[in-house]
Amino acid sequence: MIESVKVIGAGRVGSAVKARLVERGIDERNGAEVTLLCVPDAAIADVARGLAPGQGWIGHTSGATPLSALEPHTRRFGLHPLGSFTRARGPEQLDGAPAAITAETDEAREIGFELARLLGLEPFALAEEDRVLYHAGAVIAASYLVALQRAAGEIFREVGAPESGIRSLMQSVIDNDFELTGPIARGDWETVDRHVETLQQRKPKLVPLYRALAEATAS
Amino acid sequence: MIESVKVIGAGRVGSAVKARLVERGIDERNGAEVTLLCVPDAAIADVARGLAPGQGWIGHTSGATPLSALEPHTRRFGLHPLGSFTRARGPEQLDGAPAAITAETDEAREIGFELARLLGLEPFALAEEDRVLYHAGAVIAASYLVALQRAAGEIFREVGAPESGIRSLMQSVIDNDFELTGPIARGDWETVDRHVETLQQRKPKLVPLYRALAEATAS
Repeated sequence: MIESVKVIGAGRVGSAVKARLVERGIDERNGAEVTLLCVPDAAIADVARGLAPGQGWIGHTSGATPLSALEPHTRRFGLHPLGSFTRARGPEQLDGAPAAITAETDEAREIGFELARLLGLEPFALAEEDRVLYHAGAVIAASYLVALQRAAGEIFREVGAPESGIRSLMQSVIDNDFELTGPIARGDWETVDRHVETLQQRKPKLVPLYRALAEATAS
Repeated sequence: MIESVKVIGAGRVGSAVKARLVERGIDERNGAEVTLLCVPDAAIADVARGLAPGQGWIGHTSGATPLSALEPHTRRFGLHPLGSFTRARGPEQLDGAPAAITAETDEAREIGFELARLLGLEPFALAEEDRVLYHAGAVIAASYLVALQRAAGEIFREVGAPESGIRSLMQSVIDNDFELTGPIARGDWETVDRHVETLQQRKPKLVPLYRALAEATAS
């Protein structure tokens, strides 16, 4: 049973993690059983080197950063909560979110799983060599969803359609379990060609995005 | 007040519309005040030509098809419900969804708005010349969301991450009002480059999609 944790970093993830530990009555202090670095990727190595190696475990919450960034510490693991977190909300953001646990030993994996469950996350094991590919997938799902919303938003503003409709449209796609509808589902390439032609005239910057997505959808 | 409507077509949209009219106690019959074509885009012109011109109004529910497809009828309008519809659900899918109303006269626009409200939709006016651009935006938001889910799903299967995590991740992005997080939000191009490098090795078909989306997100 983990009874003490030290969280370093108070960003989107660090804030939610700290708040959850308070809820759980976990002692949050220096020299804890587990130190969790919730700092920007680029800062992980520096922060890790600044910590005296002790008997405790050290982990980071980065998706793409290798475990070797935690050197010289060897009792280490990765715990990446899969979600988009905001400071505007609290620890409930962690509830039921998956967490990718990366570890080099069974013991490290057990600590990672235990900490994840303590935080309300649902852990799964991720191989170190799959980390970057996994993170690319997460970015495709999260950051690029924002890219779609912005591109559609630019168009909706141009034609006077309500931007809130993009959110409800996307929500309906998710609620329908990502069933593909629309011209590509119907094999209606004439409509797709008309989209590209119109974008070329009125929103030429969106053409490469539209084309790449149409090809990916069709394949 | 519209008191009778004829719906032609029993696909995703037609089924939901018919069920809603039954709920509202609207008479659904031939020779109604309004005939609404909920048929595939390619069938609209044929179906319209097959209907005897009368005193009633005729509309279609296509996003991209011009009103001229309804010839020889002149008392006509477009009503495009913005959403992803499924036969697995009922008329509640229409509740509060926006509907793009295209019309050539004020009278036609009023009929379109009235029918939309009767169906539980929230109408807005869309200019005929903006129709294709608007529909491209809708496809970007809806069909291409499915493209992202499939691409991320392919990766998650490859690395053994739970595919259900893609849904919860996307939901968290929507719940956080599409706030951009992740490497591009942080200006972390090193991570983006590592993603592209890894995709080139392990999922080369996803590289053009990833690149187009990264560029769109950064711009």
